[in-house]
Amino acid sequence: MAVNAMEQIMSDLLFEYKQALQMSCTCDECLNDVLALVLNRVQPRYVTDDGKIAYVKAEFIDKQQMTTLIVKLAESAKMVSDMPRCRRFERGE
Amino acid sequence: MAVNAMEQIMSDLLFEYKQALQMSCTCDECLNDVLALVLNRVQPRYVTDDGKIAYVKAEFIDKQQMTTLIVKLAESAKMVSDMPRCRRFERGE
Repeated sequence: MAVNAMEQIMSDLLFEYKQALQMSCTCDECLNDVLALVLNRVQPRYVTDDGKIAYVKAEFIDKQQMTTLIVKLAESAKMVSDMPRCRRFERGE
Repeated sequence: MAVNAMEQIMSDLLFEYKQALQMSCTCDECLNDVLALVLNRVQPRYVTDDGKIAYVKAEFIDKQQMTTLIVKLAESAKMVSDMPRCRRFERGE
């Protein structure tokens, strides 16, 4: 089944930078909101099977391209952090 | 986990129009190639869970939006049909 290589790439980046992003909440719901938000803002890179994700990943070894992704991730993380919608936040925990 | 609602929408469209697209080969590999190709050409619509796919689907009840998707699907189907890469075609079946 066709799969968007950016899902794996952005998910890895999110966990790598989770602390550095300094979000007000890092529950699964909020991380999932960040992922959905950033994946709607980056060009999809669908490949026809998981094995081909590595080829797309290799393209992002280029510093400039990776920086662009990190900036978009940080923007999405800020939006979620500024207005968390997770149940934990609603209960004021 | 975040999911791209367009995967379901395009997959449904592909099976609905499979005959009308008149592809030279409609094996799973070729259909998967069409899906990957068209999903790289339409704006992703990630939602945070499967239950929300229906909301995105509802937006495409609008004729004009749906027509745009079908045109992109037909373009992708033509590209795959003109240059199939599936094993069946390589064996000249």
